[in-house]
Amino acid sequence: MNTFTFKRKVNYYECDRMGITHHSNYIRFMEEARIELLDEYGYGFERMEAEGISSPVVSVSVEYRKPTTFRDEIRIEVYTKNISAVKLTFGYLMYVDDKLVCKAESVHCFFDNGRPACIEERFADLYPRLIALTDK
Amino acid sequence: MNTFTFKRKVNYYECDRMGITHHSNYIRFMEEARIELLDEYGYGFERMEAEGISSPVVSVSVEYRKPTTFRDEIRIEVYTKNISAVKLTFGYLMYVDDKLVCKAESVHCFFDNGRPACIEERFADLYPRLIALTDK
Amino acid sequence: MNTFTFKRKVNYYECDRMGITHHSNYIRFMEEARIELLDEYGYGFERMEAEGISSPVVSVSVEYRKPTTFRDEIRIEVYTKNISAVKLTFGYLMYVDDKLVCKAESVHCFFDNGRPACIEERFADLYPRLIALTDK
Amino acid sequence: MNTFTFKRKVNYYECDRMGITHHSNYIRFMEEARIELLDEYGYGFERMEAEGISSPVVSVSVEYRKPTTFRDEIRIEVYTKNISAVKLTFGYLMYVDDKLVCKAESVHCFFDNGRPACIEERFADLYPRLIALTDK
Repeated sequence: MNTFTFKRKVNYYECDRMGITHHSNYIRFMEEARIELLDEYGYGFERMEAEGISSPVVSVSVEYRKPTTFRDEIRIEVYTKNISAVKLTFGYLMYVDDKLVCKAESVHCFFDNGRPACIEERFADLYPRLIALTDK
Repeated sequence: MNTFTFKRKVNYYECDRMGITHHSNYIRFMEEARIELLDEYGYGFERMEAEGISSPVVSVSVEYRKPTTFRDEIRIEVYTKNISAVKLTFGYLMYVDDKLVCKAESVHCFFDNGRPACIEERFADLYPRLIALTDK
Repeated sequence: MNTFTFKRKVNYYECDRMGITHHSNYIRFMEEARIELLDEYGYGFERMEAEGISSPVVSVSVEYRKPTTFRDEIRIEVYTKNISAVKLTFGYLMYVDDKLVCKAESVHCFFDNGRPACIEERFADLYPRLIALTDK
Repeated sequence: MNTFTFKRKVNYYECDRMGITHHSNYIRFMEEARIELLDEYGYGFERMEAEGISSPVVSVSVEYRKPTTFRDEIRIEVYTKNISAVKLTFGYLMYVDDKLVCKAESVHCFFDNGRPACIEERFADLYPRLIALTDK
């Protein structure tokens, strides 16, 4: 396994009436982890913006395995589930202590000044690092 | 097609730096639509709580087709994608005007005072109405 | 009393672990009410943007009188608490049924293509309508 | 000056269409800082809950001095602005680098199993530490 690890404590205002983390917030935690990963890999938001790159979220899917709550530290292991010419799929395994609480994925494409970008060519330095990220 | 229709305008604070509805918010719109549907079908939150029913979200998946923004009125057509003994899958087709902007689904199970409930038996009056909800 | 009325139901995901509307959300309800007011008074967001007007929030203050919860319909009565040359103060009285649940105010200034605007001069048609809005 | 320092980076999804931190989010940052302070001072949420203490927010007020944005690290200096028998007022000075971006305060009271608590008596160990927190 060669994943990118991101840790995040659940805030009080992220929990709902049932006392558990509202399910919509995991989508936000995934974004936080992804932004941190790209930043550490040299593709921070500022560089993206400066180079005219935008990267819409194509789709997400989330399986909620165990509830989490205020104060829990969620450890997110991010890996590359798939890369095609134009689509990048991140996988996410979320843990509290060693308990798997959530499994998710998100699909992304990239636009270079409005035109779809081939990931391997456009992000030649990032590509091998993404390839190396795996849950195996 | 026999769907449940829910309408919802996008708020200013639901849009992000790109000027579009942040992708996490669609998960919240889906919940709003679902709660309204169950309420209109006689299973409002209050009744659920009073009867000791809880209904966790098992999973969600969302495909973002077109961006939406502040002021857009999103029309959500909710239908029953699948019902097994213990799992209910709602499908969601979201439109702005007649443009499909988002397709999604969410899976739910039900607990009756802590024990998994058979949907057809426990919600005998709701079940046929859910069966009738279809995108065909 | 000549106020602008805005109504808004509290969503499930806006309530916290205590089962009550999280106090940060009232700030968002105030924004919703304000945007609706300005829209109805001919100064919708689109017009503001088109004319190069921006309007930052200078300050807010909120007194929480009674808790509210999921399903409550909050009726917000907005009035003009004060207008100086460059600052507009809205007051907000929020009710559930006839119970006052929250009192608030927010202060705003206006920039016309980056330069502070005199409210009475720049928004000559809006100004008398704002003057007319009062809680007396 | 003897304040409690809390640091917090602004997330992407906390910024609005103008590209700046939405003003409602500062209320949440204040809550995060407060919870951390009470936790470090021995009055964590769990202890409060276990002892039957609840602490509603009575009021908040926020002055927005400078906009902040995605990636900014906001340093919040929390101090005790006032303590009466039953009300505690926290002050907040928020900085990005050494620039003051926001000034705020929040007022809180405490209920001990439903009855208003005298802060000095009920929280005898916490009280002197709160007294010591000052922006002078």
